[in-house]
Amino acid sequence: MAEKNISIAADRDNPNLILILLLLNKWGYVSGEDISKKLGVTRSAIWKQVNNLREMGYEIESSTRLGYRLVNSPDLILPEEIWSKAKLELLGKNIHYFSSIGSTNEKAKKLAISGAPSGTLVVAEQQTSGKGRLGRQWVSPSRTGICVSIILRPEMAPYEAPKLTLLTAVAACETIRKQTGLLAQIKWPNDILIDGKKICGILTEISAELDRINYVVIGIGINVNNYYFPEELIDRATSLSLILGRKLNRKELLVGFLESFESHYNLALKDNFKEVMTKWRKLSCNLGRHVKITGKAYSFEGNAIDIDDEGALLVKKDNGEIERVFSGDVSLR
Amino acid sequence: MAEKNISIAADRDNPNLILILLLLNKWGYVSGEDISKKLGVTRSAIWKQVNNLREMGYEIESSTRLGYRLVNSPDLILPEEIWSKAKLELLGKNIHYFSSIGSTNEKAKKLAISGAPSGTLVVAEQQTSGKGRLGRQWVSPSRTGICVSIILRPEMAPYEAPKLTLLTAVAACETIRKQTGLLAQIKWPNDILIDGKKICGILTEISAELDRINYVVIGIGINVNNYYFPEELIDRATSLSLILGRKLNRKELLVGFLESFESHYNLALKDNFKEVMTKWRKLSCNLGRHVKITGKAYSFEGNAIDIDDEGALLVKKDNGEIERVFSGDVSLR
Repeated sequence: MAEKNISIAADRDNPNLILILLLLNKWGYVSGEDISKKLGVTRSAIWKQVNNLREMGYEIESSTRLGYRLVNSPDLILPEEIWSKAKLELLGKNIHYFSSIGSTNEKAKKLAISGAPSGTLVVAEQQTSGKGRLGRQWVSPSRTGICVSIILRPEMAPYEAPKLTLLTAVAACETIRKQTGLLAQIKWPNDILIDGKKICGILTEISAELDRINYVVIGIGINVNNYYFPEELIDRATSLSLILGRKLNRKELLVGFLESFESHYNLALKDNFKEVMTKWRKLSCNLGRHVKITGKAYSFEGNAIDIDDEGALLVKKDNGEIERVFSGDVSLR
Repeated sequence: MAEKNISIAADRDNPNLILILLLLNKWGYVSGEDISKKLGVTRSAIWKQVNNLREMGYEIESSTRLGYRLVNSPDLILPEEIWSKAKLELLGKNIHYFSSIGSTNEKAKKLAISGAPSGTLVVAEQQTSGKGRLGRQWVSPSRTGICVSIILRPEMAPYEAPKLTLLTAVAACETIRKQTGLLAQIKWPNDILIDGKKICGILTEISAELDRINYVVIGIGINVNNYYFPEELIDRATSLSLILGRKLNRKELLVGFLESFESHYNLALKDNFKEVMTKWRKLSCNLGRHVKITGKAYSFEGNAIDIDDEGALLVKKDNGEIERVFSGDVSLR
């Protein structure tokens, strides 16, 4: 069956209720009469919607006497899948879902300009021109990874935005460790590595006046069920399934990440990122290591000794000078 | 005559050549035959275009024998007016002109997202919802002031962007001093004052990844020929014409500013803003003065002693501590 290209703009206050009822009653029957009463729609309208869901890959049994029963869900991260599983306040009240999109960050920026509220998510099963840092490409074939962009409107000065990237890295790293048991580590500022190979990338973009942020878009890409990578990436990138030798549940991973992100975000606004910074230091693979920093016009080596309050990496050079690094590539020596 | 609402997207390589010829030969005749030959258009096409210009307010004499002669130009800052007067390389290759627009910065941001090149200008005779810093209103009635937004794509880290605001303030302040003889001064970070009243505001907005700028939009509003201000602004704002008692040439002022901006910008990219910072210090009315800083959640007083390399204001408090101020309002005591 060819995949249909679907895009959905959904509001948590106005979900696809039939799908929500089926998801919340998984393995149990939901009677057509109940649905009809609860939703105030006709039996034939329900039948039509059930068939729509079947076309998307939901296996739904129907029995004239018992009603409908969800037997199997497709590997799709539809908004209702998130809402039925996640405990979230800020994130995901509005979700824009795409079976395929150029780049979730580009879409999120457009939505932010049109006034999308803080917490809006853009979720895609596939990105056809996914972006990494510095305009680099990010490979994300259909239904293999997690591609999500978060729109935030924090009351912060622009120079504080790097801390949001650290926070995102902490949430992603903790979630991966918790759900897989793998020793994921953060490479400053925004990569998650396992055994030295990249498993997750974060791209933070801001729109700001000089002293206030208009919006932040944080894009997160996690390599979950990719079973191969292009030749040129094979030494540097991997996926959770390649390491574990099994397919993972992308929905659970995304929901876990979003819950972790939201709780860290709420805490950070209260304690000014104190706990996030402490956790980041523990999860980092840079600190205490000899690193080489490569920027556009310079490169130098030294020991990564800490990050400072603004999220810059502090590197002590051999001559004892300490450099604050805001940008550039870091390689471990 | 009611003003027509005009918008023009113009490219320096493809100007309205008839207007350019008339502007460059002001007071002299340009023969219809010459125009016809140079531009490869018919005499009747020229006649039509001349009439278009007349409708916009250009007084053009025509003589069957001698051709066309520009007698008087309306008070409009059309792209051709800029091109025929200004020596610019980077700025103004593309100019988007509006007789009326909501906000030049909003328009410039949209153009930047669609890929408008560095140096693109948005010029408007009037803003109906002009913006100042922190979402404040900026009053700009038709044909009274200068409303221009500059799109730049410098290879800089976002934390360096505040220096572009300082540069803009230096260019505006110098141009006003040079063309009017008035003692304009810069109030940190982005206001130009004369005798304590605001004459010019600057609003810098950036779109960035954490370590590189996508684009910067710098909006500049100068009160030139305003002859009154709303009651609530009368103590805080003024215009050049109210001070001088005469109407000023807005085109000359804009061209002078753009030339000054471009030369300071080119220099700053070479010397890392060294000269701009030196000039800023000299033009500032803050340094060496007692100031009160008012932010969202705090306020304090002290002596403004300097700006640092990132453009932050250094304020020495009574207890000797030095605060780096990135945002907030500064009032002189």
